[in-house]
Amino acid sequence: MNILDLLVGKPIKTSDERAEQIGPLQGIPIFGLDGLSSAAYGPEAALSLLIPLGLLGVQYIVPVSAAIITLLIIVYFSYRQTIAAYPGGGGSYTVARYNLGAYPSLLAAAALLTDYILTAAVGISAGVGALVSAVPSLLPHTVVICVGILVIITVINLRGVREAGSIFTVPTYLFVGTLLITIGGGLIRTFLSGGHPAPLAPLPPPPAVTQAVTLWLLLKVFSSGCTALTGVEAVSNGVKAFREPGVKNAQRSLTVIIFLLAVLLAGISYLVKVYGIAATDPGQPGYQSLLSMLIAAVFGKGVFYYLTIASILLVLSLSANTAFADFPRLCKAIAQNNYLPHAFAYRGRRLVYTYGILVLAVLTGVLLIAFGGVTDRLIPLYAVGAFLAFTLSQFGMVVHWRKKRGPHWFKSAMVNGLGGTVTGITVMVVLVAKFIDGAWITLLFIPMLIVFFRIVRSHYHAVLVATNACVPVVPANHGRPPIVVVPIDRWSQVSKQALEFASRLSKEIIAIHVEPGEHAELLHEDWERYVERPFRDAGAEPPQFLVLPSPYRFIIVPLVQYVLELSEKHPDRRIVVVIPELVEDRWYEYFLHNQRGRLLEWTLLVKGNQRIFTVSSPYHVSENPPREKVTSQTLAEKG
Amino acid sequence: MNILDLLVGKPIKTSDERAEQIGPLQGIPIFGLDGLSSAAYGPEAALSLLIPLGLLGVQYIVPVSAAIITLLIIVYFSYRQTIAAYPGGGGSYTVARYNLGAYPSLLAAAALLTDYILTAAVGISAGVGALVSAVPSLLPHTVVICVGILVIITVINLRGVREAGSIFTVPTYLFVGTLLITIGGGLIRTFLSGGHPAPLAPLPPPPAVTQAVTLWLLLKVFSSGCTALTGVEAVSNGVKAFREPGVKNAQRSLTVIIFLLAVLLAGISYLVKVYGIAATDPGQPGYQSLLSMLIAAVFGKGVFYYLTIASILLVLSLSANTAFADFPRLCKAIAQNNYLPHAFAYRGRRLVYTYGILVLAVLTGVLLIAFGGVTDRLIPLYAVGAFLAFTLSQFGMVVHWRKKRGPHWFKSAMVNGLGGTVTGITVMVVLVAKFIDGAWITLLFIPMLIVFFRIVRSHYHAVLVATNACVPVVPANHGRPPIVVVPIDRWSQVSKQALEFASRLSKEIIAIHVEPGEHAELLHEDWERYVERPFRDAGAEPPQFLVLPSPYRFIIVPLVQYVLELSEKHPDRRIVVVIPELVEDRWYEYFLHNQRGRLLEWTLLVKGNQRIFTVSSPYHVSENPPREKVTSQTLAEKG
Repeated sequence: MNILDLLVGKPIKTSDERAEQIGPLQGIPIFGLDGLSSAAYGPEAALSLLIPLGLLGVQYIVPVSAAIITLLIIVYFSYRQTIAAYPGGGGSYTVARYNLGAYPSLLAAAALLTDYILTAAVGISAGVGALVSAVPSLLPHTVVICVGILVIITVINLRGVREAGSIFTVPTYLFVGTLLITIGGGLIRTFLSGGHPAPLAPLPPPPAVTQAVTLWLLLKVFSSGCTALTGVEAVSNGVKAFREPGVKNAQRSLTVIIFLLAVLLAGISYLVKVYGIAATDPGQPGYQSLLSMLIAAVFGKGVFYYLTIASILLVLSLSANTAFADFPRLCKAIAQNNYLPHAFAYRGRRLVYTYGILVLAVLTGVLLIAFGGVTDRLIPLYAVGAFLAFTLSQFGMVVHWRKKRGPHWFKSAMVNGLGGTVTGITVMVVLVAKFIDGAWITLLFIPMLIVFFRIVRSHYHAVLVATNACVPVVPANHGRPPIVVVPIDRWSQVSKQALEFASRLSKEIIAIHVEPGEHAELLHEDWERYVERPFRDAGAEPPQFLVLPSPYRFIIVPLVQYVLELSEKHPDRRIVVVIPELVEDRWYEYFLHNQRGRLLEWTLLVKGNQRIFTVSSPYHVSENPPREKVTSQTLAEKG
Repeated sequence: MNILDLLVGKPIKTSDERAEQIGPLQGIPIFGLDGLSSAAYGPEAALSLLIPLGLLGVQYIVPVSAAIITLLIIVYFSYRQTIAAYPGGGGSYTVARYNLGAYPSLLAAAALLTDYILTAAVGISAGVGALVSAVPSLLPHTVVICVGILVIITVINLRGVREAGSIFTVPTYLFVGTLLITIGGGLIRTFLSGGHPAPLAPLPPPPAVTQAVTLWLLLKVFSSGCTALTGVEAVSNGVKAFREPGVKNAQRSLTVIIFLLAVLLAGISYLVKVYGIAATDPGQPGYQSLLSMLIAAVFGKGVFYYLTIASILLVLSLSANTAFADFPRLCKAIAQNNYLPHAFAYRGRRLVYTYGILVLAVLTGVLLIAFGGVTDRLIPLYAVGAFLAFTLSQFGMVVHWRKKRGPHWFKSAMVNGLGGTVTGITVMVVLVAKFIDGAWITLLFIPMLIVFFRIVRSHYHAVLVATNACVPVVPANHGRPPIVVVPIDRWSQVSKQALEFASRLSKEIIAIHVEPGEHAELLHEDWERYVERPFRDAGAEPPQFLVLPSPYRFIIVPLVQYVLELSEKHPDRRIVVVIPELVEDRWYEYFLHNQRGRLLEWTLLVKGNQRIFTVSSPYHVSENPPREKVTSQTLAEKG
């Protein structure tokens, strides 16, 4: 039981994968948290742009929401089909790759990765922001709380997808449940009051009218409200996480998520209209969130109010988890096509893609710390990524239908084409409306990511070409044995062990002592007595003994230089450098000895060539208990 | 010209050491900054304890200063003799080691190291503290300024002792010069006014009398004023830095430093008395430093006043440099006796003890950051260390004289005995007076350091015993060749290169493929075609091919386990693990490939035994330009 077992759990066998997979009910919290939580901020994002229209603006929320929900349903059908068509997961990236080609797929990949990094940071900081505005004494600790939540989410995800599912179930269902009760209560009151319910808690005064309605304003309202759609693609990226039948289970999860989201959006919009709740300006004193006003209007500020608000805060800060569920899976799909380091495709001890989780955690942490836990300014950035991916995925599906030409293919293609056009327009509107606010950063970052993908792939390609071996091995029963070089600092068991190993490899041995100090005299004597004599006694030529001067007191540099020159002088010979290594019992004991052996090996590897090999010849202190008493006197002399 | 050359300068040959050594004039800024700068706070430390006595207290400063100067002169003669007796440097540590034994020398060493770390931190933060109280807008940047000065001092010291000498010369002489002019001016005015000069700037009102004089108070005043003595031992630690004749030059430096310090102390004390300047409370508004009041009283607040104050600030923050000159040299002396890691004894490219400088910089940086750049609370801690070292060094000299029994030995021994007794009493007084304020931390830290010294030495001793080889080497012309293990992931030039090297080492080769995935089928075919066939064609037994299952997807663990079992099964055989290594051109390319080779080697080294050797078999991508075109298709298949 080591510390890793305790933290992330014991390793899971690859063959036990089935037990780790999830059903449709667990899929909702894992892949749906981001989407569902957007019900908490989507309508508000739309309404806050309607403030300048005064109370009249509130009337526009119903048609705008209807348009958004229609788009949601188009996107839903699109991703439902994507899941069936590409059960391997990867969502928009896979669709674009198979139907639109390499570059559009990289565009989708870059857009989605950007989206996930931002979602994780914005989700956590939105939840914590709401928390600290409720409990102002926590304000100075914003960053610490953010990072704490990030660490918790990271560890839960490292523990495996199933555990994440069980842990996030309670807050998700609490959130959905309390909001549904609020909507139900509101509808009943509306019905009982004949369409004009009186709010139980006083509403803030309606805003003053400062502007008339324009088409551009309505477009901006629509595209802002569309942030409610982000997170919808999540399920399609992670089909493989579902247990068999994977496609059916993933589709069921998606259906429930979209249905709940649509109900929440519709209900909230309708009640906002009948109660006449206008958004308040977040920058001004007296700001209240839309849901806070709505819940208070329906049920008053009682226990239920606080329970609902608490569940909203919790779900907001946990919505980052969807990014943690998808980012690593998407990275894995990209890495399998050699566009990202292969490490992203390795599954860790709990069958999750450890590297992806850790990379996302680090990037999110950097964002949170750099922005001091207040990431409002990042919000305009991330809708661009999500909608770019939606658009590419939908047009990819159009091509898919056209290629397949199944029954009703034209109808399916039309639906996806319409969806793609609308989400494409949304991307443009968001880009234009939010360009100054930071959307340009996304425009800069996505191409950089694509360039990175290309560099990684061409590197892997070059290495594959360079290492590809369609030639047989040459068994070495001819040619001369290698030249062996043994660096020696003083005569000891460590150097003895290395020299004995060297003598097995070749008869041509060169022992080298680099001389910045004053040992050489003593070493010469030892060498004569302990090496030359026994070699001669055994009838063998003793190894060469070479002292390299080191006027600058460097040890590694002259050694490496010597070996490189030797290899140049003998272009047909292999050179083996046998490095004596003292192995200690405890890791901290390494600080007491120099790490020249490791450094020498590394330098030879990097600066050397293919005919230079290094051998670590270990001497274990613990295996060799003291056999003779060395007095302090001897130690002082050697010191 | 690399970055290191630019930052700390080109390497200096050991044989060019003479040119790097310093003369007596350069010795003053290098080893005297700490001692001289204490003239700026020693008298104030004494006077501030006299505040409760009102103006009467000021009268006591002259006898107290006389006592301190007497002690200074005793300590001076002691260290002058120490320099002559121990020209190898190491000061109190060396004296105690040769005359009092191992434990007292370790006590001196621990006390001095503690003193130096604290001196460096307190010096920098005192200077920066004075600066930010003069320019309050810099207050929020205190830590940054502290760390900036620390970095500058560190780099200057890494550049070599001679450069440090030239750079610090100007501020040192400016400091001494302006203070001497102030004292001279004050004395002339006193003489002209018949002993009662009128201050040119108004003095703050004298403090109210709240206490009568007691012996304990005077003892505390004396021991506080003794902080003016810290830094006196500096020269004796660094005799080796002086050019020949080293002893004479070091003694000259010491003489000048002590003479200047004595004149400054005497002059300041006398003028404070005749001007009737009482200290003000640093915690209260209207606080002014003693020197500030004195300079203003003598010359008014003109240009000269600001020049003098600026030079005091500069010298205070640079006084940390003395710690940087001495700490590494002391560490080197301790390391030579095996009480500290040997790395402290290595001289870097500029002939200075790089590790000591870096360790001191890190420790000082940690203190500065941990205390936010305000280290007032550390001041009581560091006088204890310095005076403990003084005491041990003086009693060591007593023993030295007794052993030598030269002419007048008894007189010399008496002087040192008196000095040791007085500094010993000072240690006790400081300890008792400042115990609550933090002196207990020193009492805790010094024994911990001594325990650390002992552990380090006994570790080196154990390793020396375990590796001591008074036995001849056994040339290996008998016995069987080793068993060679080659881990193989896929058939490539990298594995081919490793296998060919393996075939030179032994006829018993075991190729191992760890199988978490799905490559094995393909590898089997390649193996048959590219390895088994050529071996048989050459009339040799082909290597064994082994697939290890890995249910948990680990790669290193099953390999290491297999090698360990193999070694257990063949207790009389050596095992050589040949690790194929792909060597890239650029360091950042390593992120694109796993570092399993290095990890495997490391694990085998630590978990293995003396019969397990590892070989790095490098395959350089850059040496092998593509010989065949691999299409993207192939890449995708291999992906």
